[in-house]
Amino acid sequence: MKSFYSEDIFLSSQTAEKIYQEIKNKPIYDYHCHLVPAEIYEDKQFENIGQMWLGGDHYKWRLMRTVGIDEDYITGQTTFKEKFMKYAQAIEGAVGNPLYHWTHMELKMFFGINEPLTSQNAEEIWEKANKVIEDKKLSPRKLIEMSNVAYIATTDDINDSLEYHKMIREDKSFNVTVSPSFRTDNLFLYKAEGYDEYIKKLSDVSGVEVKDLASLKDALKNRVEFFASMGCKMTDVGIERFPQSIGTDEQADKVFKKVLSGKDVGTDEFDDFISNVYIYLGKLYKENDMIMQLHLAVKRNASTKLFNRVGRDAGGDCVGEAFPVSALIELLDKMDMEDSLPETIVYTLNPTMYYQIATSIRSFRNVSLGAAWWFCDHYSGIKEQLCLYSETASLNTFYGMLTDSRSFLSYARHDYFRRILASVIAEKVENGEFAPFENAVKVAENISGNNIKNKLGL
Amino acid sequence: MKSFYSEDIFLSSQTAEKIYQEIKNKPIYDYHCHLVPAEIYEDKQFENIGQMWLGGDHYKWRLMRTVGIDEDYITGQTTFKEKFMKYAQAIEGAVGNPLYHWTHMELKMFFGINEPLTSQNAEEIWEKANKVIEDKKLSPRKLIEMSNVAYIATTDDINDSLEYHKMIREDKSFNVTVSPSFRTDNLFLYKAEGYDEYIKKLSDVSGVEVKDLASLKDALKNRVEFFASMGCKMTDVGIERFPQSIGTDEQADKVFKKVLSGKDVGTDEFDDFISNVYIYLGKLYKENDMIMQLHLAVKRNASTKLFNRVGRDAGGDCVGEAFPVSALIELLDKMDMEDSLPETIVYTLNPTMYYQIATSIRSFRNVSLGAAWWFCDHYSGIKEQLCLYSETASLNTFYGMLTDSRSFLSYARHDYFRRILASVIAEKVENGEFAPFENAVKVAENISGNNIKNKLGL
Amino acid sequence: MKSFYSEDIFLSSQTAEKIYQEIKNKPIYDYHCHLVPAEIYEDKQFENIGQMWLGGDHYKWRLMRTVGIDEDYITGQTTFKEKFMKYAQAIEGAVGNPLYHWTHMELKMFFGINEPLTSQNAEEIWEKANKVIEDKKLSPRKLIEMSNVAYIATTDDINDSLEYHKMIREDKSFNVTVSPSFRTDNLFLYKAEGYDEYIKKLSDVSGVEVKDLASLKDALKNRVEFFASMGCKMTDVGIERFPQSIGTDEQADKVFKKVLSGKDVGTDEFDDFISNVYIYLGKLYKENDMIMQLHLAVKRNASTKLFNRVGRDAGGDCVGEAFPVSALIELLDKMDMEDSLPETIVYTLNPTMYYQIATSIRSFRNVSLGAAWWFCDHYSGIKEQLCLYSETASLNTFYGMLTDSRSFLSYARHDYFRRILASVIAEKVENGEFAPFENAVKVAENISGNNIKNKLGL
Repeated sequence: MKSFYSEDIFLSSQTAEKIYQEIKNKPIYDYHCHLVPAEIYEDKQFENIGQMWLGGDHYKWRLMRTVGIDEDYITGQTTFKEKFMKYAQAIEGAVGNPLYHWTHMELKMFFGINEPLTSQNAEEIWEKANKVIEDKKLSPRKLIEMSNVAYIATTDDINDSLEYHKMIREDKSFNVTVSPSFRTDNLFLYKAEGYDEYIKKLSDVSGVEVKDLASLKDALKNRVEFFASMGCKMTDVGIERFPQSIGTDEQADKVFKKVLSGKDVGTDEFDDFISNVYIYLGKLYKENDMIMQLHLAVKRNASTKLFNRVGRDAGGDCVGEAFPVSALIELLDKMDMEDSLPETIVYTLNPTMYYQIATSIRSFRNVSLGAAWWFCDHYSGIKEQLCLYSETASLNTFYGMLTDSRSFLSYARHDYFRRILASVIAEKVENGEFAPFENAVKVAENISGNNIKNKLGL
Repeated sequence: MKSFYSEDIFLSSQTAEKIYQEIKNKPIYDYHCHLVPAEIYEDKQFENIGQMWLGGDHYKWRLMRTVGIDEDYITGQTTFKEKFMKYAQAIEGAVGNPLYHWTHMELKMFFGINEPLTSQNAEEIWEKANKVIEDKKLSPRKLIEMSNVAYIATTDDINDSLEYHKMIREDKSFNVTVSPSFRTDNLFLYKAEGYDEYIKKLSDVSGVEVKDLASLKDALKNRVEFFASMGCKMTDVGIERFPQSIGTDEQADKVFKKVLSGKDVGTDEFDDFISNVYIYLGKLYKENDMIMQLHLAVKRNASTKLFNRVGRDAGGDCVGEAFPVSALIELLDKMDMEDSLPETIVYTLNPTMYYQIATSIRSFRNVSLGAAWWFCDHYSGIKEQLCLYSETASLNTFYGMLTDSRSFLSYARHDYFRRILASVIAEKVENGEFAPFENAVKVAENISGNNIKNKLGL
Repeated sequence: MKSFYSEDIFLSSQTAEKIYQEIKNKPIYDYHCHLVPAEIYEDKQFENIGQMWLGGDHYKWRLMRTVGIDEDYITGQTTFKEKFMKYAQAIEGAVGNPLYHWTHMELKMFFGINEPLTSQNAEEIWEKANKVIEDKKLSPRKLIEMSNVAYIATTDDINDSLEYHKMIREDKSFNVTVSPSFRTDNLFLYKAEGYDEYIKKLSDVSGVEVKDLASLKDALKNRVEFFASMGCKMTDVGIERFPQSIGTDEQADKVFKKVLSGKDVGTDEFDDFISNVYIYLGKLYKENDMIMQLHLAVKRNASTKLFNRVGRDAGGDCVGEAFPVSALIELLDKMDMEDSLPETIVYTLNPTMYYQIATSIRSFRNVSLGAAWWFCDHYSGIKEQLCLYSETASLNTFYGMLTDSRSFLSYARHDYFRRILASVIAEKVENGEFAPFENAVKVAENISGNNIKNKLGL
């Protein structure tokens, strides 16, 4: 029996330990996350562990609701200490939940606390952790530095001025590369409040009056090039809908004009616009040597009551419907035929799509499966994704882990991932299925940073 | 190597054995089954093991067909001894099948027989088992008592008089609580023969003439309250179709009147009725503090030939189509918005829906994932459900096992479940992922009865 | 730690080793493959290992593209030696990929080489392997003999003259039974180039002028009987589409005439034809005691660019869309009702359909789940299929492994399968879940050849 979160946690064999030793100190390339550039720039010391953990983490909020904690203690006006006490209640029975893993890895890694958080010791851990914050002056940059992070790609709206990115780059006291990602979601959320102003803002920041498809494309070109000039290498989209048909310029232009003129546009009709713009964006990304990330099969704001009370990104999202993968194939094939298919990473939140996506995308040369994402980003989810990747492609080509997180403590997830990765590869070595050991280490190293580093030209 | 069905069967480690020791003798709360109240009341001694096993168990019938046994020896006019001999042939090669597990757990638990049933020893086991029936006077109540059952929720049509329930309650010699469940399937099977009479009977038993949606709702209110007065805490529905749209009162009334007047009504159209009535029932359940169980994705009577020969519940059912979970979300959300969402348990027979359902329902406070059901209710199916539950919610909140069975021997499945549960939790303790041990035991105890007991106010 | 591909590779326990010992030398009944009869008849010695491995194996081509190797070194004009060197690069990091397993099993089994293939030793292995080819005069028949193959069912178009089959049967120096399979795909690919000529050829070879549904059926009857006379016991179809409705003779006739007269026919409309002909074929198969194989959920030629360059069967296929299994049930039920349901094996490439298919088909007596297929035919895919088979039916009835391969080296996959099979069964014995040991061996033997041998009357 292993002791609680000891050095060999999540390492399944001695070979796994040996592989892990080779990768555990490698720098982190966190090529997709939701950290806020302003917070990195301002670098304020945290007030307490309650603020750090419960200020914005909808994973934790969700678990707290599951065990019946009142919303006042989740997103309400109670103090962070009160919320922390309630969180301890929620976590103590959450055996097997990734939050249980992360909570205790973070406690150990950043606070030197190596015991189970329970309702009994919550007060004590609150004190201990806050003392560490005080003593070590824990702040965003401090945590980034403690985690040996070399590269961060944040997620930024295409209209963003990237001013904080600029200031971070100009701040010579901070040596970690922080780059923006070109995230296009809001361009496709045409039913959202304020879509008009959003398009107006796009006109303003691009200097191109957006009034039809052609001018939109000019504006997008301008924005992609601006982002590229700011060091952007990654792009992203994560809307609910995946287009089920491909629109011609004429069709897409017609739909977009209807939207701009305030007319009703159906979901199917709007597919023409999404797909047409995706293809154009693919071309821009390829020209600018950017990676296209597609985040598929998410459902947002399932509970209206929760949305009305707390708003978006509050724990009401979930795994979305699987959709016909033939639509994805058709889009990739179209881009491929027009030589406008950039390096692409496809993520899905619905694991039933894994096998079909993994085999489909491998019919194209430069499209690969993304890491286990969000609800799938736990021990067995990561293991499943690694096994599937290895069975349907060469694991050696995988871009590896990213935090996808809003929290500076989430770098612990890279350590979590590396332990699982080492265990998965080691199992093959232990079973006499794979050799030599050096090649096993090489694969682990490539996935732990080399592959994405090389692809990003860092 | 373990010996055949020894004390540590299905226990994967010493920690698992220790956890199992703490839960193995806890009383059973079987909150969903298909036992027949009349059989409990009458309490007749069984004639032989053939009758006990093969009189009505379509799981076994199915396996017998799979190995090519003639229908005469399954549901035909042959003797139970002949059928038992054939079953021995079917089971001896069924490595890994849950029937193999249950058969040998039941033989050990109730008959003290601890050897593999094969065609060689079938005759001998037939004799031994029947002697035990004779010696111990095995009857429904005897088996219930031997299994340490505290609570049984049967499954009862909404028109049922519950007379046997009444008699069981009045029988002071029997101390196990036997409660009805409000099962609404027949209300929605509008194409079934005799639907007219069914509605007429509903009018009769409720004292409300059912002639439109409003009167139907009055009748349903009457029946729910009658069931509540008889101690009913559980409700259930398990029809093939899940409504893909929500009907207004006007729409539902219109459709229902068409049905009542004998007109053709399409499946899509009837969705208006199903969804509207579901929402009303949710409200009634909430008011009466009942749990709403939804059993999803089942396909009935796949083989017409088999149906024509043997009828329903004969082994011709199977896993149904996965349907868009967005429809489920929409329904729950609607109920939630109207404050009429009762405590709800969602089961699905199609495991590809698990992940999406598990994450979707957790966007609502009082909806949780049900136990592995029917075709999924075996070693790896139970393990998968437990792991998934733990990854997407707090395992500590799970309501745990139910037999869903027509057989009084099926209480062995609770032991089966507890062994797997102990193993799953122990694995986390063994790996140093979860502590302290007392909390691991507490989670196991909660799932083994405490949670459902508390929720039912027992 | 096991050494590299030692005797106990893929055997998880001593019990597994003992079971494996009992089955490892059993003759192979390869009841579905894509070997070319002419190659068996001509029996030319292979030139080098590059030709053997990379001349036509799209699995390997795919992996090579995945790691970024130029198409010239895959399907282009470079030498087999150059291609082999590149393949070594692709394989050395492919930990967990079935190609890694097969590559090293084949190296050991046929060439006596027991070391990992890497870019470092590729030249050396190239020399060693080619020397073995020379020394042992490796040719198709030599490999078949070395593999202890008793029966081969190739895959043959219904228009095929089967002349090579005839010559093989007449060649008394070769004692392995090589039988054709009746493969109907081309009959349903009505949009393919040359469909007209295909139908004309069918008229020619059958002696029935095909001009409508009735004459088509006569022609098919003729062909099935011709195949039967040539020893054919297996049939097969593996088109993308599964019909979602069942067409009457009138509907099917109308659609077929439209096709023959060159008119546009929609996919939905053509379903009438497919389903109607499937039912008729089922009847013919039953009359001729042939097994019907359905290969479902495949997507062909996902990348148009690749198709344009290399053509079909080049590595651009992938897992297809899951479709409503109710359509499969409806078809099987219809055949069953008309007493025209032959012994049937259902394969799917999309593992999300497994559970639903496995339970659905078991509602019929003579329909069973096929082996893990193509993209699923690797260690964990095979294990998953075996577990699922055992949980939903009696594993003892499984027809077992087939290579589905174009390569004479692929008999190694039978050894791969037998090792996994032994491990899966042994696990139940080790855990005290199944006994006696002799019955475990019996199940393993039945699956390793007895079942299909008996069914084929060999």
